[in-house]
Amino acid sequence: MKKSITVINGDGIGPEVTAQAIKVLDAIAGHFHHEFNYTYCLMGADAIDKTGNPLPDETIESCLNTDAVLFGAIGHPKYDNDPSAKVRPEQGLLKLRKSLQLFANIRPINTYIALQHLSPLKAKYLENVDFIIFRELTGGIYFGKKELSEDGNRASDDCVYTTPEIERVAHLAFQYAQKRKKKLTLVDKANVLETSRLWRKIIQQIATAYKEVAVDYMFVDNASMQIILNPKQFDIILTENMFGDIISDEASVLTGSIGLLPSASVGIGTALFEPIHGSYPLVAGKDTANPIGSILSAAMMLDYFQMPEEAKLVRQAVDWTLENRFVTKDIDTINFYFTSTIGDLVAEYI
Amino acid sequence: MKKSITVINGDGIGPEVTAQAIKVLDAIAGHFHHEFNYTYCLMGADAIDKTGNPLPDETIESCLNTDAVLFGAIGHPKYDNDPSAKVRPEQGLLKLRKSLQLFANIRPINTYIALQHLSPLKAKYLENVDFIIFRELTGGIYFGKKELSEDGNRASDDCVYTTPEIERVAHLAFQYAQKRKKKLTLVDKANVLETSRLWRKIIQQIATAYKEVAVDYMFVDNASMQIILNPKQFDIILTENMFGDIISDEASVLTGSIGLLPSASVGIGTALFEPIHGSYPLVAGKDTANPIGSILSAAMMLDYFQMPEEAKLVRQAVDWTLENRFVTKDIDTINFYFTSTIGDLVAEYI
Ligand SMILES: CC(C)[C@H](C(=O)O)[C@@H](O)C(=O)O
Ligand SMILES: CC(C)[C@H](C(=O)O)[C@@H](O)C(=O)O
Repeated sequence: MKKSITVINGDGIGPEVTAQAIKVLDAIAGHFHHEFNYTYCLMGADAIDKTGNPLPDETIESCLNTDAVLFGAIGHPKYDNDPSAKVRPEQGLLKLRKSLQLFANIRPINTYIALQHLSPLKAKYLENVDFIIFRELTGGIYFGKKELSEDGNRASDDCVYTTPEIERVAHLAFQYAQKRKKKLTLVDKANVLETSRLWRKIIQQIATAYKEVAVDYMFVDNASMQIILNPKQFDIILTENMFGDIISDEASVLTGSIGLLPSASVGIGTALFEPIHGSYPLVAGKDTANPIGSILSAAMMLDYFQMPEEAKLVRQAVDWTLENRFVTKDIDTINFYFTSTIGDLVAEYI
Repeated sequence: MKKSITVINGDGIGPEVTAQAIKVLDAIAGHFHHEFNYTYCLMGADAIDKTGNPLPDETIESCLNTDAVLFGAIGHPKYDNDPSAKVRPEQGLLKLRKSLQLFANIRPINTYIALQHLSPLKAKYLENVDFIIFRELTGGIYFGKKELSEDGNRASDDCVYTTPEIERVAHLAFQYAQKRKKKLTLVDKANVLETSRLWRKIIQQIATAYKEVAVDYMFVDNASMQIILNPKQFDIILTENMFGDIISDEASVLTGSIGLLPSASVGIGTALFEPIHGSYPLVAGKDTANPIGSILSAAMMLDYFQMPEEAKLVRQAVDWTLENRFVTKDIDTINFYFTSTIGDLVAEYI
């Protein structure tokens, strides 16, 4: 098969981890006789530096005209610590999510026996942890009206949800639940928020169409405890944008390193694949970042291309590196391998 | 000294845990020759059942006219699972916070060596954990305009902050930091939210007046990891209402049981003291709930009354019960003591 992929390296460690995912995709292409073509595009602080725009039009164009997007990471402290900056890197990613209508961010959370020693949690809490967080990605407080009064003393962010926005991501989550352990947990704050009550009402309605799926409802404050106290209770977690941002990063601690976790953002347009970690400018360019999150994001891309064998082989290769302790510095500060070496090893295995 | 206290039992396990805190306050009164007078008032599902109103006027009146409020817990599943309920218990608590202008919720997080085995975290992560979360309590998305369109298909919650709202809680947090380890971490989402950027700007300004305090800034998604990965890095965490709700509950897992944690809500009017746990209707009336969160909330009340010796004695008594394994069912499911027995033991020790 022939597939075209837009590659957006982005900021910080984005370029070096993405390069490893490309190596792996190339190895897959070689082994299975596919052809993957890459178009490199700009976004984020990198794009601001080069063009003044966090998301140049050519990037959107390319994304819309290719089969998938592979993305690295975004963000730079020089914007974070300047609350009055007018242009910021994250605007690029948010606009891209909106332009491609990527309404669902899918983050699988599982644990590796070989890495249990790394997790702050005791081993017994990590057994059988295997859930997926479905985070709504194009609505809520991220995209509501933002205002700052003229005197700069009053700021607001509106959080809005509509029935269709909730329904589309909910159906996707229910469909996954049906194929898995048939359990779906809605995380909200329905005792306080009007938007959460709308979520709860819609999910109660949709649930009647998925009778085999057991649904439960959890307040976000409680969920933030349950993810640590009893993570194996979860199968599919469905939640709105802001809560999903928080609890999916929190859940990454179960795995032992955020550097390992991939995500897929899917919707109406082209799908986008990115590791859940950030841009970590402090270690950028050092060849020490963990490329596994990006490599596993490429595996999710292969699934999306309907290439299950290919995806499986990538995951096998990753497991093999972890079991043999071919790991980066975040996992073993003493006996570590470089980012590029891990990429080579995974590609060679394939 | 003579002090008047409004007691609001609230819902679920509220009454039984609050009763133990009262026992303890009475023991303190006896030992130190104080006089504490209690006025019992209604709030929450309990108040709805009895009066139709989650916060009757007499309750507000009493709170305004007494020296402090001791509160149990709020909430009932019959309202949680009915997204179209017009009256809900939580409205009572939110309205009370607003009426008393309780703009700062103070939640100390520390760990007990005797209870380390209970925490899902490995022991080395729990050493030297000692921080306080300052959560803004009367602003943000909790209190912004809430709307539901007539056809019920569009809901919104507005998140608003003004400079004075941020300043007053920030000054309080900085003052605490000055008396402690001189470190303050602002948790926000300034890369996405306008309100967070206002928070960041104000804190940067205020920080210049507290030169000894080291300030850092952390995105809430990262904070939700750091609280588990490296909790000892924190001294004072300052954050807005919704983020504070989530991360303070999350931080409770460090301690081993949410049942142990107290909080104080302070502001312009009378202060309010409440355990951070919820109403747990499932175990209500069974005399098995953990009263320590409520008892330590009473200790925070004693501090607020400028009775440091008294507060210290309560904390000593609590430590003594924990060290001697006089604990409730949440901590030891086999050899457990009843809620009322723990109250008696703490009171007797005093
Ligand atoms: C970079 C930031 C805007 C982004 C988000 O909050 O969505 C990131 O944290 C993520 O989770 O993908
Ligand atoms: C009961 C609920 C409204 C409340 C809140 O969200 O503030 C509770 O979770 C808390 O943290 O005190």
